[in-house]
Amino acid sequence: MSYGYHNKILRVNLSTGEIGVEQPGERFFRTYFGGWGMIAFYLLKELPPRSDPLGAENVLVFAPGIITGAPVGGSGRSAVGAKSPLTGGFGAAEVGGFWGAELKRAGWDGIVVTGQAEKPVYLYIKDDQVEIREATHLWGKETAEVDNTLKEELGDGRIRVAQCGIAGEHLVRYACVISDVNRAAGRTGLGAVMGAKRLKAIAVRGSGRTEVADQDRVRQVAEWLRDHFKETWALGLHENGTDHGLIELNDAGGLPTRNFQEGSFEGALKITGQTMTETILVGRDTCYACPITCKRKVQATGRYQVTPVYGGPEYESVAALGSCCGIDDLEAIAFGNQLCNTYGLDTISTGVTIAWAMECFERGLLTPADTGGLELRFGNTAAMLTLIEQIARRQGFGHLLAEGSLRAARQIGRDTERYAMQIKGQEIPMHEPRIKFALSLGYATSPTGADHMHNIHDDSYTSEEGIEGIRSLGILEPLPFDYLGPEKVRLTKYHIDWQVLCNCLCQCMFMPYRREQVLDIVQGVSGWDCSLFELMKVGERAMAMARVFNYREGLTPQDDVAHWRFSTPFESGPKKGVLVPAGDIARAIELYYGMQSWDDQTGAPTAAKLHELGIGWVAALL
Amino acid sequence: MSYGYHNKILRVNLSTGEIGVEQPGERFFRTYFGGWGMIAFYLLKELPPRSDPLGAENVLVFAPGIITGAPVGGSGRSAVGAKSPLTGGFGAAEVGGFWGAELKRAGWDGIVVTGQAEKPVYLYIKDDQVEIREATHLWGKETAEVDNTLKEELGDGRIRVAQCGIAGEHLVRYACVISDVNRAAGRTGLGAVMGAKRLKAIAVRGSGRTEVADQDRVRQVAEWLRDHFKETWALGLHENGTDHGLIELNDAGGLPTRNFQEGSFEGALKITGQTMTETILVGRDTCYACPITCKRKVQATGRYQVTPVYGGPEYESVAALGSCCGIDDLEAIAFGNQLCNTYGLDTISTGVTIAWAMECFERGLLTPADTGGLELRFGNTAAMLTLIEQIARRQGFGHLLAEGSLRAARQIGRDTERYAMQIKGQEIPMHEPRIKFALSLGYATSPTGADHMHNIHDDSYTSEEGIEGIRSLGILEPLPFDYLGPEKVRLTKYHIDWQVLCNCLCQCMFMPYRREQVLDIVQGVSGWDCSLFELMKVGERAMAMARVFNYREGLTPQDDVAHWRFSTPFESGPKKGVLVPAGDIARAIELYYGMQSWDDQTGAPTAAKLHELGIGWVAALL
Repeated sequence: MSYGYHNKILRVNLSTGEIGVEQPGERFFRTYFGGWGMIAFYLLKELPPRSDPLGAENVLVFAPGIITGAPVGGSGRSAVGAKSPLTGGFGAAEVGGFWGAELKRAGWDGIVVTGQAEKPVYLYIKDDQVEIREATHLWGKETAEVDNTLKEELGDGRIRVAQCGIAGEHLVRYACVISDVNRAAGRTGLGAVMGAKRLKAIAVRGSGRTEVADQDRVRQVAEWLRDHFKETWALGLHENGTDHGLIELNDAGGLPTRNFQEGSFEGALKITGQTMTETILVGRDTCYACPITCKRKVQATGRYQVTPVYGGPEYESVAALGSCCGIDDLEAIAFGNQLCNTYGLDTISTGVTIAWAMECFERGLLTPADTGGLELRFGNTAAMLTLIEQIARRQGFGHLLAEGSLRAARQIGRDTERYAMQIKGQEIPMHEPRIKFALSLGYATSPTGADHMHNIHDDSYTSEEGIEGIRSLGILEPLPFDYLGPEKVRLTKYHIDWQVLCNCLCQCMFMPYRREQVLDIVQGVSGWDCSLFELMKVGERAMAMARVFNYREGLTPQDDVAHWRFSTPFESGPKKGVLVPAGDIARAIELYYGMQSWDDQTGAPTAAKLHELGIGWVAALL
Repeated sequence: MSYGYHNKILRVNLSTGEIGVEQPGERFFRTYFGGWGMIAFYLLKELPPRSDPLGAENVLVFAPGIITGAPVGGSGRSAVGAKSPLTGGFGAAEVGGFWGAELKRAGWDGIVVTGQAEKPVYLYIKDDQVEIREATHLWGKETAEVDNTLKEELGDGRIRVAQCGIAGEHLVRYACVISDVNRAAGRTGLGAVMGAKRLKAIAVRGSGRTEVADQDRVRQVAEWLRDHFKETWALGLHENGTDHGLIELNDAGGLPTRNFQEGSFEGALKITGQTMTETILVGRDTCYACPITCKRKVQATGRYQVTPVYGGPEYESVAALGSCCGIDDLEAIAFGNQLCNTYGLDTISTGVTIAWAMECFERGLLTPADTGGLELRFGNTAAMLTLIEQIARRQGFGHLLAEGSLRAARQIGRDTERYAMQIKGQEIPMHEPRIKFALSLGYATSPTGADHMHNIHDDSYTSEEGIEGIRSLGILEPLPFDYLGPEKVRLTKYHIDWQVLCNCLCQCMFMPYRREQVLDIVQGVSGWDCSLFELMKVGERAMAMARVFNYREGLTPQDDVAHWRFSTPFESGPKKGVLVPAGDIARAIELYYGMQSWDDQTGAPTAAKLHELGIGWVAALL
């Protein structure tokens, strides 16, 4: 008997209609763990190099991890991956909720989707029963309607649905995969990959469970979390959601404001998690097995009709659609968030692409002639909401914005690319390097482009308390936020390797666990005699594979760049004058390359490093 | 309060007579742990580059580890280090017994000896009381007499004495440091460094202890060992000592015989641990806190007067003075071992240097004119014993052999260097690469030259049972002994990093602990929240520092070579025809360099690797 995995990967070829089962065996699961590792494995093994990410060749992987579905907080997540239509490189996004756990309950450790359907289809999975079904009636429909329709026509209200939304259908390059209507595998445009494959949705229902080797051990962690999370920083998540920290970021001078031109926002108090709690909050929601309930249910019935069904905005969404666009109307932001979930748009790329257009407009680089008459000034709430609608359906000016800020800027020209806040084509999330210098390094070198899901929020490590969780890796001293020397680079490497591990495990980063408790979960679930050493290597391995993938797809070290804006000083606010020196970043990148054993010509890990990670077959791809 | 260390390093300058105390602080101990790490630290910090190892400049470090003296099996060891007079590079040797634990009991975490005394001296340490005392009356005396004299004149029979022996006084390049008369910090010639400094001995007595943070946790491991070691392979150690495995090596065709010309010895049965038990064994001895009692007490009163005081021969000594010299007389071997302990000679280098001379003699490259009339044929027991006497006092032909086989061969010329079984000038220990291919790699790249104390005996990893202990590092499958491809190189790296960690901790390699039990000991003793990841980094760090030291002293990648003999086939025996292909070794070394991030021009780790290991100050030495 296996624990943590069923040894069953579902294979679906949408071109031929073939459905198959792959049983990769224990070594596969112990080497890759799921999530990023599993995605990178299939992309490297099966995707023909230089394929069109929106073509039939792309390989779309739904990848929970070995702990997904285990009865312990943080195990509700799963990952989705493919070659990214946004970056042209490794595409992966993680998502909470219940869908991944349901897939495991149905007995599947992952789904590898290849080919392209002639007509819209959805996949229906009920335990061993798997069908490709026609979805013409779902095409063009909003996510909630799709969700409801599937539950009705399949006669099971407990079905879990992941879907691509209208934005995915229209191949918006930052369309996301939405599950349960209100959870987004947001980044790198994987909804567009679903759309390109004409795969509208995957409806899953399972009657089994994730088998756990040592129930007591897993239960101990679960009970610790339940009984003690309120004594940790997770209390803030429970009380005011992920947006709870917005005000601290603003006070620190690092709340992305008006397309990152500023770091503090005069309207910050109006859009904090605290304010959300006091105004539009009507309930708290959570993910599989998690007591923290950081998810929001919000409602508004005035100027904007916001229903609790679509969930409340996370911090990233509040800041991207709010401060980054100069908007301080929380109801409008919640409505914008609802629209994104309705259509399947990544709120970060959506907000930052709109903010780019606003900055260009204010600088006179865009005019109403470009925007279809929209006055794209910061703070123009109506324009922001209109653009979301336009982007999702590729209408009007939204057709251009649906390409993402980099491609849009390149089409427009006129020096607009300068203001596209993106790296490798992916828009920068709501974490400001000037208050967390190491982010410059992490953003620049991430294989998915600017991404916060495996990156270092190094404000965490500036205090003795902050390094508590990572000290068992040998990080003995806190470091200042504005230091980017060798010790910070080392800390960044260890932190990112760990975060990528979490993206393989599909372990939520918001759990206030010590490293050893994560090890307890992994050992308890799988029964494997892993160590933290092995876990770190799993993260390093998946990162290495993603970098080899990018190399193969034509990305180079020249794509590992920081954004110039963060090397200019804030002109106002608490961090007035602060900048991340470009020379520091360049040195940090060079050092990080060395620490990761990345070749400075190719940007890929050396063959020796790949062998050291136990993946010699990947070295053969160099 | 600190645990595992006192934060007190004793500084002794023999040139000035100054005695001082250094308090390097917690970060030092958590970064280096002791042993190799501490030695490498002081050598890199304080030894002027390219110093004469036998000059006053050499820095001699006595370095227990953070677990030395803790009440748990395997904690009886300590290390000694300096620039090696044998290799010209990093010199370090580890030793069991009680001396290291006594030093910790006296409140010291290490001793750094610099300078050179004008007249022979010894160091007397009784807790805080430290004195440099004249030792003229001890000079030229045998180890047992020195030990007894010191106990008498200091009026304390429980004093523990480490000393250099007559061989050290005579600057024999492979003189060792003997403690308790019968334990040898054998390799790399550290006894000669003591001799050169005119430091005859260090007598220690302490009334304190190694403070332990979590007594229960440490006790649990200690009790597990006591109650269960007989269910493990350590049973063989208890019953028949380290020599218990000689017969298996012989049966496998890998018992070094007649200077490694052969792998099986017709007289093997006469010199096994089993035979020792049945013939000359009169008792079992042990190290501090260890229930295994692998040490032998042997006695002979016939042709050779062997007293239990000097201890029985270990496997290395039996094979080096026995099969490697073609000698199957166990009493003679025990007597040879006693002579080595009497004079302070490393039995391995002694035996292999004599075996070299024998092979040269048999090939006609040495004649009685060279040897002072000795008929140096394999199996000539009397000649072997005579040469030990001569070497220790640098008399006759022994004066040349006291230089070690490489230097001796270079003085002799006549193609004799070809038969010197050494790497970097240090004689190869009693483990044959042709039955453990990975040893070729480990011997070639070890910073101390051919050395078994941090090397891979990869016959351990050829079975599912064999990888049990290392699987938590992610090594999932056993590998055949005669495979030297990338997966074996990876296994070798992980194994060696771990062994070097043990040489920092001063954890005995013969404990049948799982990796996690060692972690229990480290955490239990120190109270630190270490992980196995951190422990592996401690080993990698000390190795990296040793490599930088060698680079600084002028060693290059050209010194990382395998011995040609192992790439020629055995002409007979169970492994007839087996050889380690030279191309395999070259490829393995190249790959290992990459995995360790060693620069192929310098042989030293890259600056990035040193920063990743948290020792940026070492990068400044490149």
